[in-house]
Order: sequence, then C-alpha cells, then structure tokens
Amino acid sequence: MAYQLAQRMTGAQGSIIRDLLKMASEPGMISFGGGAPDPAAYPADLIAEITARAFRDRSTTLLAYGISEGYPPLVASLKDYLGQREGFDFSRNELLITSGGQQGGDLMAKLFINEGDVVAVESPSFVGVLNAFRSYGARLMGVPLEEDGVNLDALEALFKAERVRIFYLISTFQNPSGVTTSKEKREAIYELACRYDVMIFEDNPYGELRFTGEDIPAVKSFDREGRCVYTGSFSKTLSPGMRVGFLVYDKALHQHFKIAKQAADVHSSTLYQLVCHELLARHDYPGHIQGLITRYREKARLMTTAMEKHFHPGVTWHAPQGGFFIMAWLPPGCDSLPFVQEAIRRQVITVPGSAFMADTSAPHNGIRLNYSLPPADKIEAGIRTLGQLSHEWLGSARAV
Amino acid sequence: MAYQLAQRMTGAQGSIIRDLLKMASEPGMISFGGGAPDPAAYPADLIAEITARAFRDRSTTLLAYGISEGYPPLVASLKDYLGQREGFDFSRNELLITSGGQQGGDLMAKLFINEGDVVAVESPSFVGVLNAFRSYGARLMGVPLEEDGVNLDALEALFKAERVRIFYLISTFQNPSGVTTSKEKREAIYELACRYDVMIFEDNPYGELRFTGEDIPAVKSFDREGRCVYTGSFSKTLSPGMRVGFLVYDKALHQHFKIAKQAADVHSSTLYQLVCHELLARHDYPGHIQGLITRYREKARLMTTAMEKHFHPGVTWHAPQGGFFIMAWLPPGCDSLPFVQEAIRRQVITVPGSAFMADTSAPHNGIRLNYSLPPADKIEAGIRTLGQLSHEWLGSARAV
Repeated sequence: MAYQLAQRMTGAQGSIIRDLLKMASEPGMISFGGGAPDPAAYPADLIAEITARAFRDRSTTLLAYGISEGYPPLVASLKDYLGQREGFDFSRNELLITSGGQQGGDLMAKLFINEGDVVAVESPSFVGVLNAFRSYGARLMGVPLEEDGVNLDALEALFKAERVRIFYLISTFQNPSGVTTSKEKREAIYELACRYDVMIFEDNPYGELRFTGEDIPAVKSFDREGRCVYTGSFSKTLSPGMRVGFLVYDKALHQHFKIAKQAADVHSSTLYQLVCHELLARHDYPGHIQGLITRYREKARLMTTAMEKHFHPGVTWHAPQGGFFIMAWLPPGCDSLPFVQEAIRRQVITVPGSAFMADTSAPHNGIRLNYSLPPADKIEAGIRTLGQLSHEWLGSARAV
Repeated sequence: MAYQLAQRMTGAQGSIIRDLLKMASEPGMISFGGGAPDPAAYPADLIAEITARAFRDRSTTLLAYGISEGYPPLVASLKDYLGQREGFDFSRNELLITSGGQQGGDLMAKLFINEGDVVAVESPSFVGVLNAFRSYGARLMGVPLEEDGVNLDALEALFKAERVRIFYLISTFQNPSGVTTSKEKREAIYELACRYDVMIFEDNPYGELRFTGEDIPAVKSFDREGRCVYTGSFSKTLSPGMRVGFLVYDKALHQHFKIAKQAADVHSSTLYQLVCHELLARHDYPGHIQGLITRYREKARLMTTAMEKHFHPGVTWHAPQGGFFIMAWLPPGCDSLPFVQEAIRRQVITVPGSAFMADTSAPHNGIRLNYSLPPADKIEAGIRTLGQLSHEWLGSARAV
C-alpha cells in the first residue's frame, strides 16, 4: 500500500550521529563522534551487586507493573539530591522518572507543542531533543550561541517576532558546543521568558561533571513563576544503557505529565530505577562523581594538549570546564562537512556542526569533538590525523 | 504562569484502571481490576540468573548505548519465534523492539495520525492504547464487538462514512471482553481495510495463552499489502516490569519506525532484551508458556465456577478460551458504574465497561473481571461478594 505519514513526522530526521556510531565500531576507526561516557567509568560491579540483591529480596517489585511517575524510593532520593545540589524547592515542584533524558524532550513536546508552534533553540543544540520537538511538528528557530550563552538581542528579537512556546537550553557544558550559559544570561533569559510568556525547557545532563570553575545555579532554581521544566539523566553519570532520566516541573503540571508518561510507555523499568536509588541513597555517589571528574578532566587535557600541538592556528576552540565535548571551529565561512567526511576516510570520526542546527542543510564551521568515550591512547593519534588535515585544508585550500 | 496544553492532550485521560490498582494494595481489598500476570508465574529465578551472567560476561553491552531497533540477538530470535508461531514472513517484514506494548501504540500514532484523524476501535477496547491514540489527537470511533469480533456492517458503514486511517483490533482474547475474532471475520476485516484503504493495528499480547480451542492465524500472517502493523509484548508471558514489546511491519516502514523510536527514547534498555532473548533462544520457552496456560486455565475455571454458583441469572458471560479476562454483563440497559462503585465499598475491585469505550461518559453494562492476578483463594470470596450484590441489584433494584 502507499503509506501516508502523519504531517508531524515529515520533519523528523534520523540521527546522523547514531549512523556515525555504527561506523565507529569498524576496526581501526578512532571515534570522537559519540556522546557517551567512558565504559571504564560505569560502576558495573556495583550495579551488578545491587541488581543481584534486588532479585533476591524483591523480585516481584522488579517484575510487576510499576508506578507511572517512578519508583517511589528513587523519586524521594532524587528530590533530596536535587534539593541539595540544585536548590530545587519540592514544596512547589514535582519529579517524574523518564526512560532516559530523551523521553523528557518527547513528553515536553507532547504536552505543549501544537503542530507549527515555534520552539527557540540554541544554535547549535542537541540533535536528539531537536528531533523529539520535530516529531511533534514544532518549527525550530535557532538563536546564535556565544561563549557565555545565547545572544540575548537575537533571543528577544525572536520572542518579539514570533509566538515562541518554548525556549530549549542546555545550560551547562552544552552539547555540542561545550558552552556554559553565565549566571547573568540565565537571569536575563528568565526575565525575557516571563515578559514574552515563553516556557523554558532546561536540559542539564552534564552539569555535575565540572572540572574547573564554580557551579552556576540552574534556571529552574530561581523559577518563581513555574515556567521552567528541567530535565536530567543518569546516562552520563552512571550508564546510558539503563535509560533513566527525570523531569522536574511545577506541581500544577504533575497530572498532565503522568498522563503523557502513561500514554507513552506506562512506566520505566523498575530495576534500574532501584539501582539509581541505591547508588544515590546508600553509596558514595559524590565520590563516584568525583572519580568521573578526574577521569574526564584528564581526557580533556589530553585532547586540548594534542589540539594545541597539531591543529592549524586557524582552528579555534575553548578549553572545556566540564562535560564531554569541545567544539573546534574552522575559520568563519568554512563548511566543516567536507572536512569531517575526509577525516572519516582517514578513520577519524567527528560530527559536523551542521548536524546540530535547526536547519541542518546550512553550512557550519564547527566540528564536535568528544573526549569522554575514546580511550586515552587514541586521543593523541586521532587529533594528529585531524591536525594534519587542518594544515592541508587551511594551508592550501583556504577557500573551501 | 497559565499553562496552555497542546490541543492533542486535551483528549488524553488518566487511566481509571491505574487509579484502581493503587487502591488494590489497600489491606482487605480483593482486586479483579488489574490486567497483570500472576506474580507467581514470573520466571524470577531464571531472569535473576541470566541477569547475573550477563553482568559477568558483557556488562559494557548492557550499560552502553544500544541500537534503536533493538538488541540484535533478540531481534533475530523473535523473528525465528514469530516466523514459526505466527507464520510471519520476515523477507517482507521487519521487527523493532519497543518499551512495552504500550509504546507500540504510541509509535503507531506518532507515525500515522494527524490530529483529527479517525481511528476505528473495537467497542470496548484496551484503554491504554486508546489513550496513546488520544494523545496524538485521534478521533476514536467505536465499532460494536460481538462474540466473534466486530460487527462487520458497522465497520463498513464507518469506513464509508469517515476517512478512517487505522482500525485497532486486539485479535485474540481481547482486553477487556475476552473475545477472539474468528478467522472469517479476520479475513473480512482485512478485505474491508484493503477496499477502504485503512491500516490495521493488530495487538496480540494474549494470543499465546490459549486454554482450549484452536489457534487462529493473525491478520498480519495474511497481510499481502503490508497494511497491518502487529504489536506484541512479553508483559503477559514473562513480566510487565521488564517493559519489552515489539512491532512487526512491512520493511518499507522500518526507517520511519526507527526515527520515531529514536525520537521517543533512543532505545529500550538492553538488559531485559537480552533476558528475553536468552529465554526464547536458550531455555524451554514453550514449556514456560504451557505452565502459564495450566495456571490461568485453572484460575479461569475457579472464577467461572464461582460465577455460576453466586451470580444472579440476569448476569451473563462467555467462558474464556484464554487470556486474562471475563466480561460479565449486567442486563441490557443497566449501567455497571454504580455497581462497580458499590462493590469497591465492599472491598472488591472491578472495572466498569465504560472505561474501555471511545466515549467513556456513556453508560455500559459490562464489568471486566481479571482472574490472572488475584490469588486462587481470593477468587471465590470476591465473586461471592459480587454475586450477593448482583442479587440485591437485580432482585430489588432492577431499574438501576
């Protein structure tokens, strides 16, 4: 038969990154293309031990239907953790467990986006959540990201020109740029959102992984009007394969999010919710996070040191203060896509900046480099290949 | 702030059944309200053993990001199983793992339903998938269900009167009615779908659990035009808490379903996919199913025996040939909702038929009784209470 897709799905796209990841498993490939934690950092033994004990003590709880809003002990321990760490006020807010951070984007779009509604996004931004919004028919409009967050004039101009429903931001160690929005810009963004009646969807999967500098309060922590929905995840700090994330929002939204979650997948699997709860409440979770910070700080240092050594001086970047990514910038006007394609032929995978744009067909001079996943001994070799290519590219073929 | 929900969510409803389930855990309650397997039937020790071995042998596979379409060994073993059991042709079809059967409904609606599109549903039908369709703005239209499937004249009249996009049917041991659509009606439904260019969404979570009678081929097995999307689940046969289901559809749809799945939750957790694979491919899965059949046949017998003994003769039902449910019918014109409410005051939970209708506000004389979950020794006691109520209700207050 001739299939007729729903209008909303005509804008949704496959993830170029997930296609690249499949290539990354080919022998000889060095991949800076992923966005995953270092497998050596999974607390696998602890997870296995907690799992075995849970099957011994409460297998029926694990195997029966669970509660849509989440495994109650995890909901409680996460509220404690986020109350302390982020200063969230759970007398006014509620929390719901999601099947990974991605589902946070899906439920947000399901609840608030009518087809054709405008969602403002950082430009560049995380392609997974952009696709969740696209899959509900959102019109994405990009706002240029600067070193300390989006350009406020451009944000306000967009809020003035269009009825923007949601502004999506990754406030700390942004994917793909590595940028952290400053305290001043967070406050200014919030005031603009109030003035133009826009909801804020704040995504913060990397915030705990800070190597240097001071934590900056989440927008959600000073959300006096309940217009910010916050999403986080254990995918970067414990394991992405567990698929455990969460949403925090004003209590008035709880019934709506519960209904959306029920309709989407009833509830998230209980076992890994229990694992996250045990790790948060009964183990040295801050110590685990500190171990991750040490690990990723070192990997980031390896990468930036190699970049300084090998890259053509026309390539620029900011040293990361945390998270998983560095964005390397070819000179203005260069399109990074052919550069990335040639690098893949030389067995080094990266992702072109254009993949992270509201309009993925426009050229972009950024290249996302991931340092969390590749083994330390591959970082130098991969950067050397990219550096050599940058010299060929910018030395002789400047006009590309 | 004043929240403005997306139009699509104004029709979505909380599940009355999930609210009832919360009540079911109160002391003294006997619940025939759920739709879950008997916890004693979970192969908990085997699942614990497979899990422990998987953490020992391949913890990185479990904890890293997985593939959106599913854990490849499970995809392969499920194709084998469904090819043999259901006769599906995987040279023309593909399979995708979902986070429970519920997500099958969510992805189907996401891909094919524009807001306002008509979805024809059996009347009554499974409220979970109805809510998934509602959450994408579908207009649900019910087609009366008879003892052997929907009324074909009513189905064709609806296909003629409206541009129906999808017909949703639970072909075997339907939830909530227990009805199995006959072979003749399956063929007639398929021909009507071809003639009026309607897709069929065939949901079959109970089909393996047949106590008596002969298996009837799934609509998907004779789907020559690729217009049937089939969904199944391990929730009834292994464990609902694992949240593993699957979709089978024409190869031409694979890329679309993969994109929808990526946008929804990236992938389903790998561990329980591996567990399902091991149980299917390396253990006596048919023997496990046979054990379930013996168990549920006996529970169904206990319930129908008690119903014969205690119920007022004005209450009618069909003895189930499989699955989890019996629908008891009060005399025509009675509304079961006040009956169910009074039964809950007497500590027996059931679900009124109206909960399963496209229009949940209309009265309905059915009462869904679940026999899979309650302990055997509670079945007689709970039915006795309902029977006593039926005599009070129909003996003296016939006009209710």
